[in-house]
Amino acid sequence: MLKEHEIEIRVRYQETDGQGRVHHANYLTWFEQGRVELLRANGHSYRELEEAGVLLVVAEFSVQYYLPAQFDDLITLRTTVLKAKGARIEHRYQVLRGQELLAEATTTVACIDRSGRVKRLPGWLAVS
Amino acid sequence: MLKEHEIEIRVRYQETDGQGRVHHANYLTWFEQGRVELLRANGHSYRELEEAGVLLVVAEFSVQYYLPAQFDDLITLRTTVLKAKGARIEHRYQVLRGQELLAEATTTVACIDRSGRVKRLPGWLAVS
Amino acid sequence: MLKEHEIEIRVRYQETDGQGRVHHANYLTWFEQGRVELLRANGHSYRELEEAGVLLVVAEFSVQYYLPAQFDDLITLRTTVLKAKGARIEHRYQVLRGQELLAEATTTVACIDRSGRVKRLPGWLAVS
Amino acid sequence: MLKEHEIEIRVRYQETDGQGRVHHANYLTWFEQGRVELLRANGHSYRELEEAGVLLVVAEFSVQYYLPAQFDDLITLRTTVLKAKGARIEHRYQVLRGQELLAEATTTVACIDRSGRVKRLPGWLAVS
Repeated sequence: MLKEHEIEIRVRYQETDGQGRVHHANYLTWFEQGRVELLRANGHSYRELEEAGVLLVVAEFSVQYYLPAQFDDLITLRTTVLKAKGARIEHRYQVLRGQELLAEATTTVACIDRSGRVKRLPGWLAVS
Repeated sequence: MLKEHEIEIRVRYQETDGQGRVHHANYLTWFEQGRVELLRANGHSYRELEEAGVLLVVAEFSVQYYLPAQFDDLITLRTTVLKAKGARIEHRYQVLRGQELLAEATTTVACIDRSGRVKRLPGWLAVS
Repeated sequence: MLKEHEIEIRVRYQETDGQGRVHHANYLTWFEQGRVELLRANGHSYRELEEAGVLLVVAEFSVQYYLPAQFDDLITLRTTVLKAKGARIEHRYQVLRGQELLAEATTTVACIDRSGRVKRLPGWLAVS
Repeated sequence: MLKEHEIEIRVRYQETDGQGRVHHANYLTWFEQGRVELLRANGHSYRELEEAGVLLVVAEFSVQYYLPAQFDDLITLRTTVLKAKGARIEHRYQVLRGQELLAEATTTVACIDRSGRVKRLPGWLAVS
């Protein structure tokens, strides 16, 4: 089970705001992509997971923005599983532009079923 | 059955882009609000409609942008039903800032069920 | 100087995602509205602030999501200034649906100029 | 000068809505990416264009949605320049999932300067 994965994201024009930098809400969308691609790198599909009735929802999120990302930047997003146990997974994210660290964040996602009830993680997802 | 309705929308900072104006994709979100509020002004709830298995999906859309909207503008959105027959509704939208016409658009929404099959509009929705 | 302010937000369809609930990134857009409207309630305009070269950027953000918001919910957002000193303002946010607390968050926004340099808050903004 | 270009786009979870399909406003963001990447394929950068004071803004847009895109779909977007003359460029877009045509659209973008005045296209952009 791979615990860390990197993807590249090209900043879209739509992701900028009137300050000429990426609007801070878009990082959450990128982090979601990071989680999806980390699953895929492990041979799993989040789409199939949902089709099987296993939903992952963000319960906690915390971020520090150090430097602004700009339109057309080629960003590296590093996603790391810190812990996956019971019904919860903790991830850490680092947003890099070359050597520069633009932002760091952590999330806790909770596993629920279609009706919203908390559910244990599938065995293969519980990494430690 | 009311065929025309106006709402006011305060432009959000997140809706601007690096050009310092509203990103053009956000108008579609506003038009959707216009349709929802026109229904509500007629005593109906789009949420209840969906819960009853009636989904409205945008099939065609066309817009002309005349003048840019800016952050914090107080916009008036006028939504008009042009035609509602069979499984389709045509709307027209006008985006105004005071007397200035910022944009005009039309959509055709189609009525489908949860499985995606085309469905006749409920009787009360078919206005002409 | 008013330190707390409430606004109502009607959840847009576009703010939902495939799980049938509001996508978690949209809360950041709402919190931004909360800050803008708190300023307005104090007789100030964030637009004029930016036009005068004073930019506020989110430096830190942290949120806990307790219950999902749904399409068409009428949400109350309570925005509170916790501290405003030097070049930084701390806000707290509470997202309510009637008596239910859906989410709580805090941000630190930093004051910068057009070139990105940290800048002291204007005197009237530094509340304690 | 290359007049047609294809890119692949992986549908993000955030791009879906409560109907479990891609919200129709997101296609405009994809089309914008298509234009940017077509420029890049021709050795040009839209970011440098803006830095040089040449802004392209969407003046007209029209789309037909045939089939819904879903989360995690790998979409092919084909962007074609139909005409580029004076101060305007017309593009056509085709959104494909394998052999299926999901949507077709056209835009007219206008060339303006930072102050919003219409501006002739740079010579190298005026293709026919």
